[in-house]
Amino acid sequence: MKFSCSQQTLAKSLNIVSKAVTSRTTIPILKGILLRVNEDGTLTMSASDLDLGIEKTFEVDNSEKGEIVVQAKLFGDIIRKLPNDIITVEDEEGNVIIRCSNSEFNIVGWPSDEFPKLNSKEEHESKILFEKEILKDMIRKTSFSASIDESRGVITGILVEIKEKTLNMVALDGFRMAISRQAIRNDREENIIIPAKTFNEIAKIISETENDDEKGTVDLYISDKRAVFIIEDTKVFLRLLEGEFVRYEDILPKDSQTSVVLNKNDFLDSIERASLLAKIGKNNLIKLNISNNNIEITSKSEEGKVKEDVIVSKEGNDLVIGFNSKYLIDALKVIDDEEIKLLFNSSISPCLIKPLTGDEYEYLVLPVRITNN
Amino acid sequence: MKFSCSQQTLAKSLNIVSKAVTSRTTIPILKGILLRVNEDGTLTMSASDLDLGIEKTFEVDNSEKGEIVVQAKLFGDIIRKLPNDIITVEDEEGNVIIRCSNSEFNIVGWPSDEFPKLNSKEEHESKILFEKEILKDMIRKTSFSASIDESRGVITGILVEIKEKTLNMVALDGFRMAISRQAIRNDREENIIIPAKTFNEIAKIISETENDDEKGTVDLYISDKRAVFIIEDTKVFLRLLEGEFVRYEDILPKDSQTSVVLNKNDFLDSIERASLLAKIGKNNLIKLNISNNNIEITSKSEEGKVKEDVIVSKEGNDLVIGFNSKYLIDALKVIDDEEIKLLFNSSISPCLIKPLTGDEYEYLVLPVRITNN
Repeated sequence: MKFSCSQQTLAKSLNIVSKAVTSRTTIPILKGILLRVNEDGTLTMSASDLDLGIEKTFEVDNSEKGEIVVQAKLFGDIIRKLPNDIITVEDEEGNVIIRCSNSEFNIVGWPSDEFPKLNSKEEHESKILFEKEILKDMIRKTSFSASIDESRGVITGILVEIKEKTLNMVALDGFRMAISRQAIRNDREENIIIPAKTFNEIAKIISETENDDEKGTVDLYISDKRAVFIIEDTKVFLRLLEGEFVRYEDILPKDSQTSVVLNKNDFLDSIERASLLAKIGKNNLIKLNISNNNIEITSKSEEGKVKEDVIVSKEGNDLVIGFNSKYLIDALKVIDDEEIKLLFNSSISPCLIKPLTGDEYEYLVLPVRITNN
Repeated sequence: MKFSCSQQTLAKSLNIVSKAVTSRTTIPILKGILLRVNEDGTLTMSASDLDLGIEKTFEVDNSEKGEIVVQAKLFGDIIRKLPNDIITVEDEEGNVIIRCSNSEFNIVGWPSDEFPKLNSKEEHESKILFEKEILKDMIRKTSFSASIDESRGVITGILVEIKEKTLNMVALDGFRMAISRQAIRNDREENIIIPAKTFNEIAKIISETENDDEKGTVDLYISDKRAVFIIEDTKVFLRLLEGEFVRYEDILPKDSQTSVVLNKNDFLDSIERASLLAKIGKNNLIKLNISNNNIEITSKSEEGKVKEDVIVSKEGNDLVIGFNSKYLIDALKVIDDEEIKLLFNSSISPCLIKPLTGDEYEYLVLPVRITNN
């Protein structure tokens, strides 16, 4: 195996493929990256942690067919530290020789036969076409709401649902729910669950390939239990989460007793300040007192108390309701609108955060029961 | 006590004074910042960890004389999160009320009587005037060489020595030594040792006050065992390290058997790459083989080996010598010159790094004994 390639190309590709390398594994080969020079003179780099596999194929020079596995961290450190010049990589008696300018590295390689195969031979049943920027934005707007508790099964994932030419992405963790919606040109209905962690890596890969083509698309091929995202010359292989997702539409409140329109940033800033005292106690508890055209936000701890006022435009009943400030902050931070609408029913019903018009996003946050002291 | 002040001024001042607040203390009052409104309508903020005290005095409005201690972290978090508007701070029954725009905080205050007094009444025996930028640069060029082992006494400090109108700053830790020299207009000779940690904070404070006056000066007043730096409206009180500093001039080699001139960045880059394999073993060992007009840098570990070549201009004997790469890297990183000179005597004598001409800086690094395999 042999190839030459610019340091920049190699470093950039390694950054992407390395996202599938896990440090927390007892299987040594999974700490490696497979370098495979193909018949056609391209190089395929790949890495896998068994749940997630990333593969990138690109043109190289002076190619000689062959494959070998290198330690991802060491190889990456070396490539990043080399000067911006041509790098030649070659195998020699099971070792890997890396030459560039006045540097020569000779590092231990591993045989490729134990390396997990990424190229699934299964038939792909369907294909979804996303616009890069829209997919990245929908991931940002939902993934934070997925459960981070590995034992929680489907709700560690994001539901990707296509029906009636609308793409719905939904994440929830039992305390809050995020929904992002976009029109999509897709005749077929879909309903799959993609791990939120994988989706976050996809968003990063999209960002890192943005210079190449800002307006590009991402293809998703779905088979029975697996899927492949194709972003430029990068393929991301993943296992879908199996099981029935929560019937999220049943959770959405159908009407409201109190409706409030307010400036998103003023509200976010006030909640962030109020939670400076809330975070010391349990639950990051803040209290919202909605009355007339004002929301008074209060919280207290042994260290003191705080009162914030946010001017709003209100319709319906007055209301006093408590929240874990973290859940409100998380949702408000990903909303780009200047003005938003909050819908409430009672102090023990969830709050719904929506745009002034339409339903491009909906954030649902469960309240915290407040006592009188 | 009462005062009003812009959020920006208050936040900036808190950043500086907070550097003297320690989180690792069992004395609760040391986690606080003293707010004292003076007779003349200025506010003095101060903090101290007993070794280091910082005090900043500036104009405020609506002042009412008085003093109270606030928890540094909570008060700082609140001030930083408030909008860019006028903040009013006031004490009320032992609490501190903070008002700004639509926010009102009421936090617990502490009485000021247990707070350590910073204003030393001792007579200051002498004064040194530094140029801000030069002092900051000399700290950067020496402090990394001081010992970080708290039990090592004087060598956790930087020697500040003035003799023959030259300011010498010297730091060493038993493995390497850094010397920075500058001409200074000071008739009196001085010889004091300032903790490197304190000097690092001084450098940060200089950076943070740079917008005010780039070409400003820093005054240092020295009394018996204490000193005060005055940087604009900030005073830094510190305890000098007591004891005899190492006679550093006796350690400097008087001549050399091998003299090498090379490009600093090429040399640094090669050592950094070589240490990718060195760091796995003990001592970060790299081997320099100086021969003809080349330095071959090699290192190896179980993971592989590396060879780097750096073109140099050499006078004197060939030499093979080993180093802990960290000590070379630390010194090379703070040198601004493009070309530098390395002086050697033997494989068991220290290496001296100097400018091509003059002695504005000298870095001395002890070698590591290398075996033949």
